[in-house]
Amino acid sequence: MPNNSVTSNNKANNTQQFYIGIDGGGSKCKAVLMDEKNNVLGTGIAGPGNPLHGFEQATNSITQSALLALKDAGLTEVALSELIAGVGLAGVNLPILFDQMSNWQYPFKQMFLTTDLHIACLGAHQGEDGAVMITGTGSCGFSYVAQKSLTIGAHGFPHGDKASGAWFGLQAAKQVLLALDGLVKPTAMTQKLLTQLHCSNDVTLVENIANKPATYYAKFANLVFDAAEEGDEAAKEIIDNGCEYISSVANKLWQQQPSRMSMIGGLTTRLIKWLPNNLLAKLAEPLLPPEVGAVLFAKQQLALSNHKN
Amino acid sequence: MPNNSVTSNNKANNTQQFYIGIDGGGSKCKAVLMDEKNNVLGTGIAGPGNPLHGFEQATNSITQSALLALKDAGLTEVALSELIAGVGLAGVNLPILFDQMSNWQYPFKQMFLTTDLHIACLGAHQGEDGAVMITGTGSCGFSYVAQKSLTIGAHGFPHGDKASGAWFGLQAAKQVLLALDGLVKPTAMTQKLLTQLHCSNDVTLVENIANKPATYYAKFANLVFDAAEEGDEAAKEIIDNGCEYISSVANKLWQQQPSRMSMIGGLTTRLIKWLPNNLLAKLAEPLLPPEVGAVLFAKQQLALSNHKN
Repeated sequence: MPNNSVTSNNKANNTQQFYIGIDGGGSKCKAVLMDEKNNVLGTGIAGPGNPLHGFEQATNSITQSALLALKDAGLTEVALSELIAGVGLAGVNLPILFDQMSNWQYPFKQMFLTTDLHIACLGAHQGEDGAVMITGTGSCGFSYVAQKSLTIGAHGFPHGDKASGAWFGLQAAKQVLLALDGLVKPTAMTQKLLTQLHCSNDVTLVENIANKPATYYAKFANLVFDAAEEGDEAAKEIIDNGCEYISSVANKLWQQQPSRMSMIGGLTTRLIKWLPNNLLAKLAEPLLPPEVGAVLFAKQQLALSNHKN
Repeated sequence: MPNNSVTSNNKANNTQQFYIGIDGGGSKCKAVLMDEKNNVLGTGIAGPGNPLHGFEQATNSITQSALLALKDAGLTEVALSELIAGVGLAGVNLPILFDQMSNWQYPFKQMFLTTDLHIACLGAHQGEDGAVMITGTGSCGFSYVAQKSLTIGAHGFPHGDKASGAWFGLQAAKQVLLALDGLVKPTAMTQKLLTQLHCSNDVTLVENIANKPATYYAKFANLVFDAAEEGDEAAKEIIDNGCEYISSVANKLWQQQPSRMSMIGGLTTRLIKWLPNNLLAKLAEPLLPPEVGAVLFAKQQLALSNHKN
């Protein structure tokens, strides 16, 4: 098997260490392959990487996204067992899932595991301490300062995740149902939601939205912002309520004295123009994506363990 | 088979018509067997009778509860095929489910189908026109005046069902999560919820409440009222918000000019002392349970069809 022995020889001669950064979320798993100098060599995307959706699904997605990143980099001769992995996963804030993922017989040379929030924060601040306010399908605040982390929110839907896409969508649905019952006045939002769902009344609306997950409701978030931007007072009230929550989370995070704070997540561009100026003034642009933050995390952990030894 | 022929002879001689009333909800199906003079002869309870939980489950529960009511009445020699059934089911406000249940090859002599709301209203007002405000696991308002019905709410959880048990429970969970994040002050409700769920922090609380249905959240409704009665301001605010909704639904129902209005459902006894006096003054005691309302419905429909013929 000449190919194998060539690979083997290449391995032996290869002094370059590659790093794989993984950002495993509820809808997809992103991987980035980097070298020692933090150059991005390739990227890969696979299915859900959140162990809340099942251990096997998560580990398959992580492995697959890493293989795709190697392929993207043109480094198919490199084995996963040569990579040092930094892995940030949604859900591993729950001790039971952290333990499960820690016990995974991972295919990498080494694996460093943390939360998706931590790698997002490290990415946003290029490996430095800082804080992030994340609003996508879900919502939360996170700070990492002097090796101490603080998480606000990240509780899930519908009991938590205020000011998230799912939350905005649910508020819209609630308001539209009240309007269809004649308990409040219909507004621009009412017709926008009915149009988006091809519905004409409360019965068909409920048939559509009953028993739907957060990702479904998050699809209505944009119409709340659209309506508000056209002057819809009901939509504005929902956004004000969401922004009030974001401000209170940001204030709590500032108490940890992070040097920087960023807003990240899919809803950021819609939300940012509605935030109070005193909060906006304190926000800094996120510098690198979460999966790169995962590589920075792995390198930090390696440096720490080398320092200890 | 002498027994069968005896039964058969009995049937032939039996000029008495029996009626079965069915109240099919999401957790159980109640049946009542009544005679022509509205005497209750027997009752039966089976599993979920709501076609939202599946056609087969619902039809099995209806049949089983009817057989149990016959047994309870000591009338096991009477066949289902001799009974005239009034059937009120949650879910059949949705046309697709109404059609599905209407096409059921039912085991009764005749079957008259309507919503659980309609039979609850007929029961509460002893077959007369009226209105009901229902607050149990879910919530809704319903009026039936001059053969016209109006339904407010009944939209389900979490997008609707404001002021229901599930809604109160969810508000409590949200408030407690905010308190555990340090965004609002903890109140009596905080410890009550943690104690009820044997939790000590937000992570274990979320592990418990994530992905739970309305029936689960409804179990926290009582602690909101307990806390409010001990002076908890956060709990009081939730209850005031719920009562405001109930008042607005009641006002909408009064516009239909029902002669009577009742509050029914499992949360009524807790809610009633928090309702504004002007609403309370207009409420009348419910007179008969929904399953009896179902029999009254069947008799009304029979009278109408006889009148037409």
